[in-house]
Amino acid sequence: MAEPAVRDEKDRVRVFDTTLRDGEQSPGISLNKQEKLEIAHQLARLGVDIIEAGFPIASPGDFEAVQAIAREVHGPVICGLARANAQDIDAAWNAVKDSEQPRIHTFISTSDIHIKYQLESTREDVKGQARASVAHAKQYCDDVEFSPMDATRSELEFTAEVLQIALDEGATTINVPDTVGYSMPDEYAAMWEELYRLVPDLHEVVTSVHCHDDLGLAVANSFAGIRAGCRQVECAINGIGERAGNASLEEIVMLLRTREQAHGLWTGVETTEIARTSRLVSRLTGYQVQPNKAIVGRNAFAHESGIHQDGVLKERTTYEIMDATTIGLEANSLVLGKHSGRHALRKALEELGFKVEGAALNDAFKRFKELADKKKKVTALDLEAIVSDQMRETPAAFVLESFDVEASSTRSPLATARVRLPGGEISEGSFTGDGPIDAFFSALNAAVGYEARLKEYHVSAVTGGRDALGEVTVLIEYHGKTISGSGVSTDILEASGRAYLRALTNAIEESPVAEAEHHLEEAVHTPAP
Amino acid sequence: MAEPAVRDEKDRVRVFDTTLRDGEQSPGISLNKQEKLEIAHQLARLGVDIIEAGFPIASPGDFEAVQAIAREVHGPVICGLARANAQDIDAAWNAVKDSEQPRIHTFISTSDIHIKYQLESTREDVKGQARASVAHAKQYCDDVEFSPMDATRSELEFTAEVLQIALDEGATTINVPDTVGYSMPDEYAAMWEELYRLVPDLHEVVTSVHCHDDLGLAVANSFAGIRAGCRQVECAINGIGERAGNASLEEIVMLLRTREQAHGLWTGVETTEIARTSRLVSRLTGYQVQPNKAIVGRNAFAHESGIHQDGVLKERTTYEIMDATTIGLEANSLVLGKHSGRHALRKALEELGFKVEGAALNDAFKRFKELADKKKKVTALDLEAIVSDQMRETPAAFVLESFDVEASSTRSPLATARVRLPGGEISEGSFTGDGPIDAFFSALNAAVGYEARLKEYHVSAVTGGRDALGEVTVLIEYHGKTISGSGVSTDILEASGRAYLRALTNAIEESPVAEAEHHLEEAVHTPAP
Repeated sequence: MAEPAVRDEKDRVRVFDTTLRDGEQSPGISLNKQEKLEIAHQLARLGVDIIEAGFPIASPGDFEAVQAIAREVHGPVICGLARANAQDIDAAWNAVKDSEQPRIHTFISTSDIHIKYQLESTREDVKGQARASVAHAKQYCDDVEFSPMDATRSELEFTAEVLQIALDEGATTINVPDTVGYSMPDEYAAMWEELYRLVPDLHEVVTSVHCHDDLGLAVANSFAGIRAGCRQVECAINGIGERAGNASLEEIVMLLRTREQAHGLWTGVETTEIARTSRLVSRLTGYQVQPNKAIVGRNAFAHESGIHQDGVLKERTTYEIMDATTIGLEANSLVLGKHSGRHALRKALEELGFKVEGAALNDAFKRFKELADKKKKVTALDLEAIVSDQMRETPAAFVLESFDVEASSTRSPLATARVRLPGGEISEGSFTGDGPIDAFFSALNAAVGYEARLKEYHVSAVTGGRDALGEVTVLIEYHGKTISGSGVSTDILEASGRAYLRALTNAIEESPVAEAEHHLEEAVHTPAP
Repeated sequence: MAEPAVRDEKDRVRVFDTTLRDGEQSPGISLNKQEKLEIAHQLARLGVDIIEAGFPIASPGDFEAVQAIAREVHGPVICGLARANAQDIDAAWNAVKDSEQPRIHTFISTSDIHIKYQLESTREDVKGQARASVAHAKQYCDDVEFSPMDATRSELEFTAEVLQIALDEGATTINVPDTVGYSMPDEYAAMWEELYRLVPDLHEVVTSVHCHDDLGLAVANSFAGIRAGCRQVECAINGIGERAGNASLEEIVMLLRTREQAHGLWTGVETTEIARTSRLVSRLTGYQVQPNKAIVGRNAFAHESGIHQDGVLKERTTYEIMDATTIGLEANSLVLGKHSGRHALRKALEELGFKVEGAALNDAFKRFKELADKKKKVTALDLEAIVSDQMRETPAAFVLESFDVEASSTRSPLATARVRLPGGEISEGSFTGDGPIDAFFSALNAAVGYEARLKEYHVSAVTGGRDALGEVTVLIEYHGKTISGSGVSTDILEASGRAYLRALTNAIEESPVAEAEHHLEEAVHTPAP
């Protein structure tokens, strides 16, 4: 597992992270600009090569987030997605142009089923759109990526024709996606071999894989494409994305690293940032990682059976092919206590990669002190949780001032909640319910004067133990929109109230998701040039 | 996706489910006999070919569970695991012998790293043990499976020698595992091709794959082995198992089914039972399935982006390669209400696959009525949850009689809990804490007189909506043992209390897990014959 002294640049696989684009398209995920920036900064620390920061035409919120990332995040190429039309490409360019390394990624379907039913178009039109859009993007930007959507269900000769057109117009990266997660490794590799044969110019550009996990093969298909010659892999943290999601970044990166001696391929990822990145994305999206998830699951490095434990005690490598410290686990020994001051906190936060100053540092310090009063040892994981929680506060949000909840098995629970409204006034609501959470959320509805409906409710603990911080994630429905919110506290009710009010704030503000869908629907119904 | 009219028996892949053996070895999972039986019955309904029911030598609890499954579960082969020594094989045989189709599965490591560090033995001894153990098993049972552990890190020629010995002694299934999840698909397929060349007798028996998911390749490696000629796949529901787990049963089965026209391979699994089996295993093990998990994740069949939604509305197959009804989703339209009687409940439960009668039916009816008072519509998912919850009650358990919790943001929470002890008397405890859950669990500790430590706490909702049933899972530590418990209620505190008391009951009874490790450790240190 030692890294070889000299690596060949031609064997380097570029890591294209689409957590903020394909990942953010998962149901119930709605990250705001600040959250997206936080993830993008962490992706830069992780050392990904390209960040697909969003789909700028989809909504003003998406546009602004991509623009902020292009301006503030240094290191990786910053990429914006665009359908194959001038309007989308203009928006993508305007969003990414301030990056040191901007990229426009444009795509159009090449499968007959998409062309006929979704685009309601023809193969000739698709070719024309591909040509015009790559040429248009190329006017702005040298770095242009093109994808034939649903390629694995397309007639290969037609896909090859479209790719040749994109190459003729100057596309520098060609990505051939398995959009519906239908392919098998040998089949996907054979597709690439045939494409290389039909389109020899592909040898002159970077080729890229983008695989979905519907049949559990996203990583294997991506790897098969890489073995067939591709040197860019599109993937997402924790494997999030449409339906069963994309290839997991952490799995593909650790596969390349762990078996480098066998295949010779490598990436520039700083693997010790993997665990932290996974926690951040899980926390901000509300998407839990299952305990048995490869690399980043709670148990990925745990050994349970007597036989395995015995073996690991005798010699670690009997049952371990990776070292937990390689992905940044067990590395954070940092611990603060109730006597730690503001300076120690700022230093600790810096070590964790957070730059917190001014009012934000004051707020973080206040939360830290409250926590240190309750918890003897405040660990790196705790700090990470409270600071991320803090960063999600926006000025317009409803703020939970105080609450009282009486719950009993012998009578209905009663909750009273006081909420500071955006204008500054305090509003109170009281309610009963089936359980304490139900009563509390009804009281919050009464206090803010909105009727949202709870769809999902999850609680998990940040660290072990009785005084652990609890993280609550809620998914609410409000006027047909589904919006998530999360909150952190040692008190499950306080965390629940914060999560619910945050979701409500997001829902009531014109939500990016809802707008995006409106725009997309319009755009899809208006055939692009 | 239509099934072909005539399928070739030689293309049939046997599904060997190891949820109850390798899956149950996951940290914090400790199923009791009744829970294992419930899962085994559901696996029979799912139509798996072989159930690996446990590791009988590991503990008396494990032995009894395997024996009960062998006696009561009809249809699949019932298999018990045994290391390569007479004592293990005797225990395995005694546990499975009452099955209509018993199997003994014996294994020994062939990798030098395992032989040297774990077994502290030699290659010659390994060959001798393999020969003696298969011969010993064969005295009892015609159906004998042999596995060379850690085969993918073994010298192939040595593995081949050991396999030839197992075949000479009459092994009928040869399973070659990727124990540490290290292999890559092409490599695993090449290993099989070479083994077939070195050991031509392998063509006369069933060959089997067993792959772990440490690098995210368990399904792909299993599939590569099947393509190379194997006709048994070892897998687990939701992909649970040691570390990152085994190949997911649902992924491999749906891969074979969805792409049958391309590869011609098939299984006998009744796919419409997949979703229910996944929920049952998730509930009883406390292992959540992540939303973006292939096939059984909440989002596997959801479409979020405007483009995808638009496409699916126009023509489902634009973005869907499988139909949700194929795995048993959206099929349960069954709904009961507060006026439904005992007869309707029993019929509904039968439709769901539960045979509930007598006192158990009375208890289930009581819980159903309580729920129907709070929830207008009681769905199939709700019934599943309360009946599984009910089935976990054991007579010796501590029972939550009643509780009162006062929580507030302005003063410390106070909880009082009354618990019925095994002897029948009621004990009361009161406590304050950092939050309402902390206070409540401390009150429960005070009531029962034991000091357990909370390690993990999770809540999720069974169905959507404010009046949803909440499922709480806790992991507690008691005298160095880690034990889980879960509970279901519309009231999160009630569900939490049930979960905590169940975990405490399990912890205080001599726990199977702890005993198993003790036995194994002893056995591992005593070189087997």
